[in-house]
Amino acid sequence: MILINFKTYESGTGRKALEIAKIAEKVSKEKDVNIVLAVQAADIRMIADAVSIPVYAQHVDPIEPGSHTGWSLAKDVREAGAEGTLINHSEHRMEISQIEKAIDIVKEEGMKTVACAPDAEIAEAICVFEPDFIAVEPPELIAGNVSVSKAKPELITETIEMVRKVDGDIPVLVGAGVKSKKDVSRALELGASGVLLASGVMKSENPEKEILELIEGLKV
Amino acid sequence: MILINFKTYESGTGRKALEIAKIAEKVSKEKDVNIVLAVQAADIRMIADAVSIPVYAQHVDPIEPGSHTGWSLAKDVREAGAEGTLINHSEHRMEISQIEKAIDIVKEEGMKTVACAPDAEIAEAICVFEPDFIAVEPPELIAGNVSVSKAKPELITETIEMVRKVDGDIPVLVGAGVKSKKDVSRALELGASGVLLASGVMKSENPEKEILELIEGLKV
Amino acid sequence: MILINFKTYESGTGRKALEIAKIAEKVSKEKDVNIVLAVQAADIRMIADAVSIPVYAQHVDPIEPGSHTGWSLAKDVREAGAEGTLINHSEHRMEISQIEKAIDIVKEEGMKTVACAPDAEIAEAICVFEPDFIAVEPPELIAGNVSVSKAKPELITETIEMVRKVDGDIPVLVGAGVKSKKDVSRALELGASGVLLASGVMKSENPEKEILELIEGLKV
Amino acid sequence: MILINFKTYESGTGRKALEIAKIAEKVSKEKDVNIVLAVQAADIRMIADAVSIPVYAQHVDPIEPGSHTGWSLAKDVREAGAEGTLINHSEHRMEISQIEKAIDIVKEEGMKTVACAPDAEIAEAICVFEPDFIAVEPPELIAGNVSVSKAKPELITETIEMVRKVDGDIPVLVGAGVKSKKDVSRALELGASGVLLASGVMKSENPEKEILELIEGLKV
Repeated sequence: MILINFKTYESGTGRKALEIAKIAEKVSKEKDVNIVLAVQAADIRMIADAVSIPVYAQHVDPIEPGSHTGWSLAKDVREAGAEGTLINHSEHRMEISQIEKAIDIVKEEGMKTVACAPDAEIAEAICVFEPDFIAVEPPELIAGNVSVSKAKPELITETIEMVRKVDGDIPVLVGAGVKSKKDVSRALELGASGVLLASGVMKSENPEKEILELIEGLKV
Repeated sequence: MILINFKTYESGTGRKALEIAKIAEKVSKEKDVNIVLAVQAADIRMIADAVSIPVYAQHVDPIEPGSHTGWSLAKDVREAGAEGTLINHSEHRMEISQIEKAIDIVKEEGMKTVACAPDAEIAEAICVFEPDFIAVEPPELIAGNVSVSKAKPELITETIEMVRKVDGDIPVLVGAGVKSKKDVSRALELGASGVLLASGVMKSENPEKEILELIEGLKV
Repeated sequence: MILINFKTYESGTGRKALEIAKIAEKVSKEKDVNIVLAVQAADIRMIADAVSIPVYAQHVDPIEPGSHTGWSLAKDVREAGAEGTLINHSEHRMEISQIEKAIDIVKEEGMKTVACAPDAEIAEAICVFEPDFIAVEPPELIAGNVSVSKAKPELITETIEMVRKVDGDIPVLVGAGVKSKKDVSRALELGASGVLLASGVMKSENPEKEILELIEGLKV
Repeated sequence: MILINFKTYESGTGRKALEIAKIAEKVSKEKDVNIVLAVQAADIRMIADAVSIPVYAQHVDPIEPGSHTGWSLAKDVREAGAEGTLINHSEHRMEISQIEKAIDIVKEEGMKTVACAPDAEIAEAICVFEPDFIAVEPPELIAGNVSVSKAKPELITETIEMVRKVDGDIPVLVGAGVKSKKDVSRALELGASGVLLASGVMKSENPEKEILELIEGLKV
């Protein structure tokens, strides 16, 4: 699985986000690879209506329907078309009890959860709440040019090992600095089930070429 | 002006939100009254596409396009159709320097800002950042059955007076517990330029009747 | 172990805090029971100088010495006399990555950590970071009149079981609503290693009598 | 007035903090200059007991006595010896309604408030809450080598002008990068009533010499 986090990049906003979403859909179909798009809340409905690959939210707040203003409700992003959501991204850290609550609420809506962690210990801790995926991303490598596969291969193996201890079935995605097919293939060799990426695609001159290159890494 | 805050009420989510938006639009046209709808981020585009009255966001984060995950970007909600946004709602308080930054960023996108304050002093303080509207709502009355017009009329006159001191032109909206035409007419008599409401409409069995009643208050 | 959290109760502030600390010390010596006092930062030095039982901080921030203003540094509370600290109390929740960092920093200073959790899952998750103690307190019972031993006995057994899974050696304290010797003895019967309490002692007319009563529960 | 913020620098912790406090006291007496020390909470009592110049807290939370764990209560730091406190330091920003509440609570305890602001608009806004002093510090200059007097002289004059508009009597302190007597004298020429400094003294090889140098600037 390749999860592309659109963040709030200019290229991940509105019409431009839709363009990249369509490119990702095309590649996903042609190459028969599972690509998931995590887009801004206000773009979920438009993009989910336009493409047939899964659209995720980037965050959901640990709230039930009720008197809350300006927060993100699982039920609402679900109805807009989100099939899942990131939780606890390093740019959106949550209190531990909120992570538990958010995962519970998101699951009740029938959505998938990709819970993010900066290291193996936090990944292990979050596994207790049984997210559908764990994504491990060392914050110091995010949006950088050196991939986690190269800079911290032991983080990947260690995370997988710790996650196995708690719950053998939770697949581990890795992220941060993933930009080449080698980054992807190395991550899979180390036991990862997929990659999480953002700047590598969103800041690329040619996102299609970039996605195609990354997919090569999946095929090794 | 009547600003209806949909919050994350079940009735303010997805298709149900769209229904109330259409009712509000109908009443706005028939009665020639300015009604603004503050809806959840994931519903902005659908509702802005469907109705011809102004749609606002409920919150915007003080961020520029870039590497941020799961936050609300002014540029994105603008492109989705939001003509303005609430800022610093009592259910979404911000640090003071973030209020300044958010108002600046939202204005650069050509959107209106309705900055919320719980009391007259905070209203005066926020006026320094020149929002388009100040909305004063005592948190203890929000979602309750007693309106600010009745429980704290002096809050309205005092806020208007303090806002005048800083910037004579900023219109003051009042909210919290507004449910009857008398609540509305009393607020206007005290100098308010409009009302902010939520539960009165969103939790009503008959939102159309409720909005019509409130509009009666505007006509006095 | 009995850990008395002084919180910011009036009775737990300054000279009044010192009085209760001396009472606790006297009872601890007379009855040969381990009593620990978690006091406000500005009172740590005075109380640690005055009594011979352990004094803890109520919170430590995940910071190293440096350019931080108004935050609580482990090195400083350690030098003031704190032998340990609460972490992630329900009235002071932390982001998950901050819990990990705070526990690491506090341990480096040679202090004990009592990490708080509202439920068994969060207790299990926090155990990954190897605190010296886990304290489980359901927030809805804190400062109330029904103890966790009575209202949620299964929380205690379940927490102990989950903590065992991760790390067999971490003792579990229980808290919330603990006010009688029966609350204490029941907690120990269920497998707890001690209790955490606050209002039961701090709001008592006669703290000495209250502490003596609770200690009876330890002796069963 | 010279306010020295000890922050959580290693040199501003425990015994080392006490040493610098005594140096500052000595210089204050010899040169007859008003020096105020903002120290870590756990050091307030020890330092206030040891020196005869004013000791302030670095932060106070907007709470009353009661069920709060690990937060800073005005009543407690007051009893420990703090005569005032910083509020809303750039390293400890607060929500706008918390600033209002904290200033009110701190004043009720008879303590002085030095409210910090990053720019002239925020300084003006905070003046509405009537702190005893406004301290303006552009965050980008904090802990740097270029002083606000040199890099942004207009910030000082502008802040003073805006503060005058709201409340003519609130003295303005300036901070960030203040390291030489020229930085101090320039600030006073521009209308400031004093300076706020930290790294210039706390990271100095010879804090006494550094404080003496800065005092020269006051005498111009």
